[in-house]
Amino acid sequence: MVVVGAGLAGLTAARTLRRAGVDVVVLEARDRVGGRTLNHFLEHGPDPENDAVVELGGQWIGPGHQRIRALIDELGLSTFDTYDRGAKLWEHNGRVRRYTGEIPRANPLHLADLQIALTRLERMARRIDPAAPWAAPRAAQWDRQTVAGWIDRHVRTAVGRAFIELVCEAVWAADAADLSLLHLLTYTSSNQGLSQLITTRGGAQQSRIIGGAQQISTAMADELGDAVRLGAPVREIRTRDGVQVVADTATVRAERVVVAMSPTLAGRLHYDEPLPADRDQLTQRMPNGSVVKCMAIYDEPFWRADGLSGQGVGFTGPVKVFFDNSPPSGRPGVLLGFLEGSQARELGRADTRTRREAVIGCFARMFGPRAARPVDYVEKVWAADQWTRGCYGAFLPPNTWTQVGPALRRAVGPIHWAGAETAVRSMGYMDGAVASGERAAAEVLTALGSGA
Amino acid sequence: MVVVGAGLAGLTAARTLRRAGVDVVVLEARDRVGGRTLNHFLEHGPDPENDAVVELGGQWIGPGHQRIRALIDELGLSTFDTYDRGAKLWEHNGRVRRYTGEIPRANPLHLADLQIALTRLERMARRIDPAAPWAAPRAAQWDRQTVAGWIDRHVRTAVGRAFIELVCEAVWAADAADLSLLHLLTYTSSNQGLSQLITTRGGAQQSRIIGGAQQISTAMADELGDAVRLGAPVREIRTRDGVQVVADTATVRAERVVVAMSPTLAGRLHYDEPLPADRDQLTQRMPNGSVVKCMAIYDEPFWRADGLSGQGVGFTGPVKVFFDNSPPSGRPGVLLGFLEGSQARELGRADTRTRREAVIGCFARMFGPRAARPVDYVEKVWAADQWTRGCYGAFLPPNTWTQVGPALRRAVGPIHWAGAETAVRSMGYMDGAVASGERAAAEVLTALGSGA
Repeated sequence: MVVVGAGLAGLTAARTLRRAGVDVVVLEARDRVGGRTLNHFLEHGPDPENDAVVELGGQWIGPGHQRIRALIDELGLSTFDTYDRGAKLWEHNGRVRRYTGEIPRANPLHLADLQIALTRLERMARRIDPAAPWAAPRAAQWDRQTVAGWIDRHVRTAVGRAFIELVCEAVWAADAADLSLLHLLTYTSSNQGLSQLITTRGGAQQSRIIGGAQQISTAMADELGDAVRLGAPVREIRTRDGVQVVADTATVRAERVVVAMSPTLAGRLHYDEPLPADRDQLTQRMPNGSVVKCMAIYDEPFWRADGLSGQGVGFTGPVKVFFDNSPPSGRPGVLLGFLEGSQARELGRADTRTRREAVIGCFARMFGPRAARPVDYVEKVWAADQWTRGCYGAFLPPNTWTQVGPALRRAVGPIHWAGAETAVRSMGYMDGAVASGERAAAEVLTALGSGA
Repeated sequence: MVVVGAGLAGLTAARTLRRAGVDVVVLEARDRVGGRTLNHFLEHGPDPENDAVVELGGQWIGPGHQRIRALIDELGLSTFDTYDRGAKLWEHNGRVRRYTGEIPRANPLHLADLQIALTRLERMARRIDPAAPWAAPRAAQWDRQTVAGWIDRHVRTAVGRAFIELVCEAVWAADAADLSLLHLLTYTSSNQGLSQLITTRGGAQQSRIIGGAQQISTAMADELGDAVRLGAPVREIRTRDGVQVVADTATVRAERVVVAMSPTLAGRLHYDEPLPADRDQLTQRMPNGSVVKCMAIYDEPFWRADGLSGQGVGFTGPVKVFFDNSPPSGRPGVLLGFLEGSQARELGRADTRTRREAVIGCFARMFGPRAARPVDYVEKVWAADQWTRGCYGAFLPPNTWTQVGPALRRAVGPIHWAGAETAVRSMGYMDGAVASGERAAAEVLTALGSGA
């Protein structure tokens, strides 16, 4: 069996197959495993005793993320709580204010408007089965419009609009104008509600992995040993005469193949038997989001002494979402800021120096002058990474779920699709990636068992 | 110089460069030239005396299509008028009625509603410079929404809505739910107005080429001789050390390269120097439309004797747009029907027999029982064609023009982009393809002249 891609989905698929007694080879374009998870060592480099790790990619797990939780336990890794004590900050109209809870304090009229909108979205989302969003009673109506179009029609106050637009940026690394309303609802349904998606404690940002999330992949790759071939970008999948997976460095024969890449990158492989139109069109119209993950490093998390959690939202930007991303020891202190959607695209064009200045400027506005003097700055422009081409994941613009959605997960002959985007539960998350790898492996085992 | 793609754009670029004294090689994946133009010979095969040709791809030119008109003249080809005498048919609520002009007769209230909407769209389009739609004063607002979202807000009657949705299908082979409002307006501005786009005489469907539109490409390829290499799918463009264009059958060195493919297919090539994020993201989010072009062949165009032009629109579908597509001699008679957008996707999944039945059924409803008994049926499912993957061309979903639009035409180092999508005037049409080839060739000549 061949697996293309050594991220969480691909490695999980390979490990599951191996454990079922199937011979497996994993072909990975990069010289590392982990895909969209990526550790960065601030001090002495990788070392079990060194917790000065920051993650340039995926990092959070939350309640309900059962598959990745089980995997973490199995691999002997541990988690810790995202720092969540103290007040959050909210920047609006040039003022920075403290607040607690999920939603900043504001004019009660604005808050009511926002709450009504969020409640309405939650209610709509509950009517969607994330395994088949196209079958929802109002799917066509919801897939005709962007989230931005919906906001323009249904949200009346400036704060309500700005907040929901910010939610889109924070959750999808895309603008409200990018997303189909049906995609927002599907993803929300797949992830236990909007509130869950934007919450730290009790929500999708609840916990982190000691030593960094990339370790999950590293540990699985260690188990798989020589079966994982790095530096082997796959170019072609041949299925005319058995399966042959052609990488730059090798061609591997197998009975079946699991492609664990984002749909847009999977669409860029060459298939000697052309894929069905639906599958091809899906890969044409399921782009990846745009995010630059930026962190400033300080000797200590000085904001904690001021009673601040390090978390915050700002309507001004370019950084709009902030977190304390320090390692468990609290040394060094790390502020994390995301550039997302249009901000990521705009500043993604700039050089690192310009970006750093813009980001640190936001940190200083929020957390005071000490934030202006970090000892280090690290960042990752995911859209520029040729083997990822955008994070956090892929989103669906209007009229895509209803038109070609069933092609997302459906195997094509001996080709199976994995990846966080294909998950029914925890879509888009590390948990979804693991679940998708298990599902793809199960498909393969069923097919092998039936002699197909 | 290397040109990738032997459609109208690529061949025009190659011919222009050759005439300027530049050595040129054209690499084409298919075993034929012409790209999205494709002749089908009904009788004896290609032969100058045989006018029994139907076109499975692009075929029309209109007023203002000056570049392709000049090329046709230069190549010694001729045009004839699309058959446009007699009444058109309109099917609505199970009834087929005759009408003349561009818009069917209907309840005056509905017609007024439709006219107001069309006028409003035309007026908005006039505020857009198609060379830079992102710079229009209201670009962000127009790019936040789908055309469907705009219709839901601004068009009140069922007929008004259905007609504008049908216009989207007919012009873009996409649903109103697929398209950014800004894209509709940009394309409209690039093509002299909506009315022009949907009109036969005096509009974009005015004339056809005697012998079929593919002849334009064939004639250019004949001129270029051995420089055109067929069956040579390009896989990779290397630019680290001069330009090398890697096809399955050969690697060609050059100073510069013109890529004349739709953006989505251009995005599937491998670039050893990864493209800038903006360009890559554009290729992720500019999908091709979906159309099945279907023709039924009859001994004669029997509808003409009934005073019918063979043109019509039907709200029921699956065929919604009809034309008389007979050759100039009127023998045989050819009825043309398009499956577009969601109809093309749905029936694209069926087998030819099912599709044929559905299409002929529509012809019979419109043109009577004689239409149910064609002597032949031909069709082309463009989304299933691995070297095209959708027609008529690419469209932009919301938030794409404003976010990454400038990357559409902007050269990346020695890589220049051509294709109908990149045209400022006649965007999406054969005329635009020719203009884009000339523009790309001019860019190359300027760069060569400056020693770049």
